[in-house]
Amino acid sequence: MTEGAARPVRLILVGVGNVGRRFLDLIVRKEPRLRVLGLQPVLAGVADSGGIARNAGGLDIQRVLALKDAGESVGAYPEFGYLGLPPEALLEEVPADLFVDASPANLTDGQPGLGCIEAALSRGMHVVTANKAPLVLAYPRLQALADAQGVGLRFDATVAGGLPAINLGRRDLAASHIGRIEGLLNLTANYILARMAAGHSYDQALAEAQQAGHAEADPTLDVDGWDAASKLVILAHSVLHYPVTLDDVSVQGIRGVDRDELCRAEQTGQRVKLVATAEWDGESYRLEVGPRCLPATHPLASLGAHGMGIIYDTDINGIVTAFIEEETPEPTAAAVLRDVVELFGS
Amino acid sequence: MTEGAARPVRLILVGVGNVGRRFLDLIVRKEPRLRVLGLQPVLAGVADSGGIARNAGGLDIQRVLALKDAGESVGAYPEFGYLGLPPEALLEEVPADLFVDASPANLTDGQPGLGCIEAALSRGMHVVTANKAPLVLAYPRLQALADAQGVGLRFDATVAGGLPAINLGRRDLAASHIGRIEGLLNLTANYILARMAAGHSYDQALAEAQQAGHAEADPTLDVDGWDAASKLVILAHSVLHYPVTLDDVSVQGIRGVDRDELCRAEQTGQRVKLVATAEWDGESYRLEVGPRCLPATHPLASLGAHGMGIIYDTDINGIVTAFIEEETPEPTAAAVLRDVVELFGS
Repeated sequence: MTEGAARPVRLILVGVGNVGRRFLDLIVRKEPRLRVLGLQPVLAGVADSGGIARNAGGLDIQRVLALKDAGESVGAYPEFGYLGLPPEALLEEVPADLFVDASPANLTDGQPGLGCIEAALSRGMHVVTANKAPLVLAYPRLQALADAQGVGLRFDATVAGGLPAINLGRRDLAASHIGRIEGLLNLTANYILARMAAGHSYDQALAEAQQAGHAEADPTLDVDGWDAASKLVILAHSVLHYPVTLDDVSVQGIRGVDRDELCRAEQTGQRVKLVATAEWDGESYRLEVGPRCLPATHPLASLGAHGMGIIYDTDINGIVTAFIEEETPEPTAAAVLRDVVELFGS
Repeated sequence: MTEGAARPVRLILVGVGNVGRRFLDLIVRKEPRLRVLGLQPVLAGVADSGGIARNAGGLDIQRVLALKDAGESVGAYPEFGYLGLPPEALLEEVPADLFVDASPANLTDGQPGLGCIEAALSRGMHVVTANKAPLVLAYPRLQALADAQGVGLRFDATVAGGLPAINLGRRDLAASHIGRIEGLLNLTANYILARMAAGHSYDQALAEAQQAGHAEADPTLDVDGWDAASKLVILAHSVLHYPVTLDDVSVQGIRGVDRDELCRAEQTGQRVKLVATAEWDGESYRLEVGPRCLPATHPLASLGAHGMGIIYDTDINGIVTAFIEEETPEPTAAAVLRDVVELFGS
């Protein structure tokens, strides 16, 4: 690899929470490496729930991060900040090459991510999203819009954090027929199950997950299986080329898991995990999410509290398993960066 | 994904053994899927150790496979076959878009693969190789030649069979610093160790591996660790951007593994495997291949006799583990096809 001229990439980021902040931190820390890879990110606009900041010439990322560390909105950014303005105000007015959506997943109507992604694609920007909801609700429309505009729509960070689960299935197994997908896709649920296996109650385990930053204040989507089901819907669209909605997934969460049963299973070497599966029956895929008791020899049984993983059982490419151990959301932010590098790297 | 016009890809294949035959079989069986992916392979030339066959308009792949099944050289192909002609005769005379090297690995001088790859690149063809030797001996020169010619040089099938180990490291972890690679990269050695753990002697286990088609008649490269070391050299060049030769790898094979010690380790849940490692010490990578005793909790400990796998321990992308179970070389042939799809798919 030789170092050529790095291409400036003007980007707009919406969402400066767990993933968005770490993404900004990575583009600062990894600047030399990114130059080698042929790109030089310029933060042209940024939005959080309190406001926006925009400067076509580039915002100071360290200053944005300092505002967030101080608990303030990016709208408080000197000279270029606007408290109370919505993210759409960035997409209308800031010329950019790339829109990055790291806003929270809203499975009800997909907003604000969905509207922002549509606006960005319509304006000819490439899009990288870590936000599942717009894809779960509108994958076919968004992909068609990206194709029509001749731009990329990437979302490797939406499934299994920093693990390139989408890339692996969509790109490396493109010529294969996938007979079965099996995934541990939700960190929070499996963190809670692992803590319960260590003897804690469901409530204690949930509180620990929240304290460790793995669970939202409202953990409903995680513990009731809808987050894992959302990821399965994205895998179905993008890897299986099999369009479905959440209604097509049979979903069971982990609230009903009995701790004593769980501990007995664990004592015999088994592991209880929240598992998402897609299984081809010759005509269609059966999609399910639920707690499963995995035998000790199962390829994903050894995953710890910080693990997520996926198995692809294929016709011509054997059985491929991949998993990741991630103790913070940094690898998820690195997956956003991966998509950016694939779109703009030389 | 919508079906557009499939692009004809004229290809030359050298080597019609375990991998080459299965690759030909796959491009026949997967023709409809390849059309959807935007390509239509045309076999313009093929060579084995006995001769060549060439036809710019396309050879009948079923006929080529029938010749091989009958134990004959492709040089016996009616009208278009030439017994005794070397593979170079294809590269000089047949116009093609792609050269696929599936010839045997020759770590002494890399031939005939090395000469063929150089000739193909020099003539502006893309190259996909399943043959390690040319890369081990001449990676920097071949990559520079490909870059100068503006063509692709792909080799995902050279490391860990059908597992996209190279793709994962080179592409998905491009922005990461990799502090450690740990790989089970040689199927034969680990198959033998697994059989020895089941109580068989080294000689029995080797004979079984040969019978199962996993070991060559001369298994030296596999059991003495040079095959795994070769794969480590390719990973060093392509993923770590750290140019080395086989001389830089500390290599120990499995001939000296004591069966009783191995069985005792296995009885306590440990697994003895031939492991390849690259470890960053702050200034350079230490490269080693040798038998190692893995604890039961090691992410690759559960791999069976047909498994190969790799762990990437990174700075920003967590710890990523991937492995494959492959009972025949078909997934390795699928990895060749993967590279072809990446080069020519739409």
